[in-house]
Amino acid sequence: MKGFGSDNHSGVHPDLMKSLQLCNEGHMPSYGTDPISEKAISYFRKHFGQQSEVFFVFNGTACNVLSLQFLMRRHESVLCSINSHLHQDECAAPEFFAGKLRTIAAVEGKMKLTDLQEALIRKGDQHFSQVRVVSLTQPTELGTCYSLNEIKTIVEWAHSQNLYVHMDGARITNALVNLKCSFKEMTTDLGVDVVSFGGTKNGLMMGEAIVVLNPKLASRAKHELKYIRKQSAQLPSKTRFIAAQFCEYFENELYLKIATHSTSMAERLFQGLQKIEKIKITSQRQSNAVFVIFPKEWIKKLREKYFFYVWDEKTFECRLMTSWDTTENEIDLFIDLVQQLEKA
Amino acid sequence: MKGFGSDNHSGVHPDLMKSLQLCNEGHMPSYGTDPISEKAISYFRKHFGQQSEVFFVFNGTACNVLSLQFLMRRHESVLCSINSHLHQDECAAPEFFAGKLRTIAAVEGKMKLTDLQEALIRKGDQHFSQVRVVSLTQPTELGTCYSLNEIKTIVEWAHSQNLYVHMDGARITNALVNLKCSFKEMTTDLGVDVVSFGGTKNGLMMGEAIVVLNPKLASRAKHELKYIRKQSAQLPSKTRFIAAQFCEYFENELYLKIATHSTSMAERLFQGLQKIEKIKITSQRQSNAVFVIFPKEWIKKLREKYFFYVWDEKTFECRLMTSWDTTENEIDLFIDLVQQLEKA
Amino acid sequence: MKGFGSDNHSGVHPDLMKSLQLCNEGHMPSYGTDPISEKAISYFRKHFGQQSEVFFVFNGTACNVLSLQFLMRRHESVLCSINSHLHQDECAAPEFFAGKLRTIAAVEGKMKLTDLQEALIRKGDQHFSQVRVVSLTQPTELGTCYSLNEIKTIVEWAHSQNLYVHMDGARITNALVNLKCSFKEMTTDLGVDVVSFGGTKNGLMMGEAIVVLNPKLASRAKHELKYIRKQSAQLPSKTRFIAAQFCEYFENELYLKIATHSTSMAERLFQGLQKIEKIKITSQRQSNAVFVIFPKEWIKKLREKYFFYVWDEKTFECRLMTSWDTTENEIDLFIDLVQQLEKA
Amino acid sequence: MKGFGSDNHSGVHPDLMKSLQLCNEGHMPSYGTDPISEKAISYFRKHFGQQSEVFFVFNGTACNVLSLQFLMRRHESVLCSINSHLHQDECAAPEFFAGKLRTIAAVEGKMKLTDLQEALIRKGDQHFSQVRVVSLTQPTELGTCYSLNEIKTIVEWAHSQNLYVHMDGARITNALVNLKCSFKEMTTDLGVDVVSFGGTKNGLMMGEAIVVLNPKLASRAKHELKYIRKQSAQLPSKTRFIAAQFCEYFENELYLKIATHSTSMAERLFQGLQKIEKIKITSQRQSNAVFVIFPKEWIKKLREKYFFYVWDEKTFECRLMTSWDTTENEIDLFIDLVQQLEKA
Repeated sequence: MKGFGSDNHSGVHPDLMKSLQLCNEGHMPSYGTDPISEKAISYFRKHFGQQSEVFFVFNGTACNVLSLQFLMRRHESVLCSINSHLHQDECAAPEFFAGKLRTIAAVEGKMKLTDLQEALIRKGDQHFSQVRVVSLTQPTELGTCYSLNEIKTIVEWAHSQNLYVHMDGARITNALVNLKCSFKEMTTDLGVDVVSFGGTKNGLMMGEAIVVLNPKLASRAKHELKYIRKQSAQLPSKTRFIAAQFCEYFENELYLKIATHSTSMAERLFQGLQKIEKIKITSQRQSNAVFVIFPKEWIKKLREKYFFYVWDEKTFECRLMTSWDTTENEIDLFIDLVQQLEKA
Repeated sequence: MKGFGSDNHSGVHPDLMKSLQLCNEGHMPSYGTDPISEKAISYFRKHFGQQSEVFFVFNGTACNVLSLQFLMRRHESVLCSINSHLHQDECAAPEFFAGKLRTIAAVEGKMKLTDLQEALIRKGDQHFSQVRVVSLTQPTELGTCYSLNEIKTIVEWAHSQNLYVHMDGARITNALVNLKCSFKEMTTDLGVDVVSFGGTKNGLMMGEAIVVLNPKLASRAKHELKYIRKQSAQLPSKTRFIAAQFCEYFENELYLKIATHSTSMAERLFQGLQKIEKIKITSQRQSNAVFVIFPKEWIKKLREKYFFYVWDEKTFECRLMTSWDTTENEIDLFIDLVQQLEKA
Repeated sequence: MKGFGSDNHSGVHPDLMKSLQLCNEGHMPSYGTDPISEKAISYFRKHFGQQSEVFFVFNGTACNVLSLQFLMRRHESVLCSINSHLHQDECAAPEFFAGKLRTIAAVEGKMKLTDLQEALIRKGDQHFSQVRVVSLTQPTELGTCYSLNEIKTIVEWAHSQNLYVHMDGARITNALVNLKCSFKEMTTDLGVDVVSFGGTKNGLMMGEAIVVLNPKLASRAKHELKYIRKQSAQLPSKTRFIAAQFCEYFENELYLKIATHSTSMAERLFQGLQKIEKIKITSQRQSNAVFVIFPKEWIKKLREKYFFYVWDEKTFECRLMTSWDTTENEIDLFIDLVQQLEKA
Repeated sequence: MKGFGSDNHSGVHPDLMKSLQLCNEGHMPSYGTDPISEKAISYFRKHFGQQSEVFFVFNGTACNVLSLQFLMRRHESVLCSINSHLHQDECAAPEFFAGKLRTIAAVEGKMKLTDLQEALIRKGDQHFSQVRVVSLTQPTELGTCYSLNEIKTIVEWAHSQNLYVHMDGARITNALVNLKCSFKEMTTDLGVDVVSFGGTKNGLMMGEAIVVLNPKLASRAKHELKYIRKQSAQLPSKTRFIAAQFCEYFENELYLKIATHSTSMAERLFQGLQKIEKIKITSQRQSNAVFVIFPKEWIKKLREKYFFYVWDEKTFECRLMTSWDTTENEIDLFIDLVQQLEKA
């Protein structure tokens, strides 16, 4: 049974599954030295700029924490949203692999420049872990997106303070569709230093990429990140099976098809729920999620047929998440069910 | 072009690839809570004993270092062979995730009990990192196998000294075929505490399993290893795609078919090479590898057609490794080529 | 020139300095195996209970982070006040040595039970670093003290949730004087598990002690903490020079004399400042500090003669700290100066 | 009772003890910002070159592992002698703070260039932890000294391979006396990058210094090492009490007096023992230790009166160590006792 639990409850997009079968021929060098990995990297360079260095890893947590480990020394800190995956969902992996987190209030899931500025205190004080990185999530955990201007403002400030900017892009392609821009316009052109590029939540079986954009960092990464990755147990041996999926993902714009589908399914859900009086939508719909407060007594009944997460146990705010395999029909049946509960 | 470089230069066994397609249906809970993961775990319990706890991870390095992190505190040490993957091929991952390594001389790839005993010094001395684990590799990096008796002797001594025994089983099924026993007879029944069970080098796309055998440790692992895995960025989200491969691997004894094939191909290679006077086979053939010293001038010519690694740059000892997809014909053609070089 | 900067701006109490000279005779075993260390430990056992295990370290940060490393696994978390030394002043040492921090709001420097309870979420969720320790500072960074009842309430709740309680006691003796109780009544009898016992801020040249109170933990500490200490580079070689100071500190109740003096000097300062209309005292005086908001323009003039820290750059709240060597005369002269500024 | 156990069984040299009393006046800023610390640093610059950056820490293990942490990334390795304190006596601190150790055979306690060269394999191989530092101990654990030429040869080779050179100088002044040169001639002038400068084993109560010599590294250290030190819990608060000892140590050449005395006492011991037929001196006397094999039955009797360590439990090689407080009379009485045993 399908539901609205998470985009990683879905399987693998059929085109991506096919790419796995197609590359399953003969022998290939392992550990990233195969031609398919090279081809996949060239796709990333096409989308993020030729200066980029790209490192495939297994999952999103790895992608984030290895990016951070590369950007900072372990006595330094990261500014990140109190809601961030880094702080809430990675079981202290950032502290283990990278360094200290300092959390920033989130308004609609996003950090405000003024709050970031206020957090940058005690520069040069040896007792106080110095901030080295700002990490922003795009789209955020609440399904909102930083605008290009908001990103630009944060990056410019960060660079003026000698900080790097990391973007946690576990669902980055969904933000792209919302902002109607290219990857380069949303990242490289604004000065973002490193992106965690997510594949698994957008139809891949598994596979994420650390994309180092800043040219100076990229040239350091070339000599350093492969060792960080290996030491962190994130170097896949049969790399072609991650790379082939990324090739397929970028060929024929499959990435846009998947993200456009997921987000338009969320929009359909948003439109349908908006009309229902007894519920309250709590966040803008700018990605593939809808956040909504249902009357408490509805939740059990809804979850019997369509699994989803209660995001906040106190307010009964729920997260409904669509995916590449969500269908219009499923959305409509869910809306129907909500309407029946309203009438009951 | 296929060669004898490594068993991870092969792709995915067709039956395993099929299992990926078959499980790619609908939604499933992520992060190991799906029914396929449960089924895969039950297969491991069947082969290693019902007390076992099983944790899937992405690759072999992770499997080793998370096993060690679980078994020891970071101020403690592991005794392992000077040849071991832990010491030579994991880019200081054991030191990062787990603790200190103390290396032991290897005779035919194996550690001798007397050398282990000699290494166990300065008990209780706070300046000296105390040994907590003995890690043995089965089969070893040189393609040899510890006999059941050798394992038993080491385990009994280790336990008498309050040490745990870890088995690095990246190619464990190949050892099984050589020793003609069951997994349980080679591990649980001898008192081995934790096994790194390898899949990738035996036909899987990716996927390894930490198998905790010792009942007391298993009950601790149940509450602890899931957090270690998550913090170490080794928790796969779409877990069904690792689990489905392991289900298929154990169903209909595919694991035996694959390992029997690989090792018999190595035997065919061994038999063929043995007849050639100018070369020297340097290690017993007890797994899917043959170690051989070729006349220096042959190597380039052989590697032009069949890639393999020069294991020792000084002696020109080479490692020839077979895999699930090696064919009799490939072996025979290779032997032919060697014979031609001999005659030339 | 003396001021009110910090109690570690003072030198060594003359009696403690004398103890260093007296023990400087002949040879003694190093690394904690000398008779003076044993004697010092017996003093701690007298004050905290015979079950205690005691480990001397060099400084307060070490005392805190080694206590935490002993109490938790690195994937776990500590609940501590947003003001805590752990979070604000140890340059990410807790994250490096121990694990993750989760900060709790501070009301008059103290954590409230309700806030602690609210922070204890997502039990058993592998994505969420699980809380293992509550760390409270006694006296707090704001010079307030948890009452015996407040400590008891937190400890009972913590134990009911399977959490340990650590007390950061960098100035613990000052709290003792305020609460008019014994060390045992403030810690062991209430169930506190581990205390960081501070010496440096109470007249020692250097030297702190990890005191493990919980009998079960103490018996584990006996075998484990010496290795943690050595690996953490906190094992002093000429240990007698730390131990001799602690012997002297406890002999003839010097500890009480020092703490009574420091805190009564703070009381005199508090009394004097309270009478001055244009300033605002912001915190209760329960230790050797007074927190006070001066008119902005006074601060420079005051600091020209008496150094102290501006605690909050926005409100101009200042911290005035007394020490074992603060004199009544110094307090009175300072009050005079403030009065002159008031009149000016 | 005094013996020949270790130079850290001695107390504090009286002149150094006096310096502690003299600096115990009034208030001083803490954490290294006091004038005495500045003066002590200027002494180090006088002896090691004005470009040097100096960081005081509590003990020798800290001095070593913080130096290494500064010089390398955690996925990298250090080449060090199999006998080194780093490998044998620091309870896995180097692996915890810095990175991986690769041990090199020791000939008379010293590493040979050819062995170092042989260990530098697999450059650029992501699976193999890359070497970044060579650490040599001067004088070595066996009381021998690298000659200036030997140091120069190793440094030049190391730099040609892009490696840094660290010198563990826990007893560095003793080597100075043996080589009859200045600190600068033994280190800076030969290109040594970082020195662990030991005080505790040469008469101090406690206190060691990380001395960064390489100008490029020094300018990085200025901004980075203070945070590494604080995070590692090695920032002393009442720093003046370490600094004052170093000032005294360098003033009026006390360092030379102490080292000359210790090493000449060792020479007297060496001369006396050399004449005794039944014992075998096993190492050159180039520092404050004599290594000697006594007939097994003598050892207990000797140790009843004069404590010393049996260095090798198999051969009964013993280490006799002199110190600043060893007297001629003690040496002579010990020799007498040995002679009596010989005659018995």
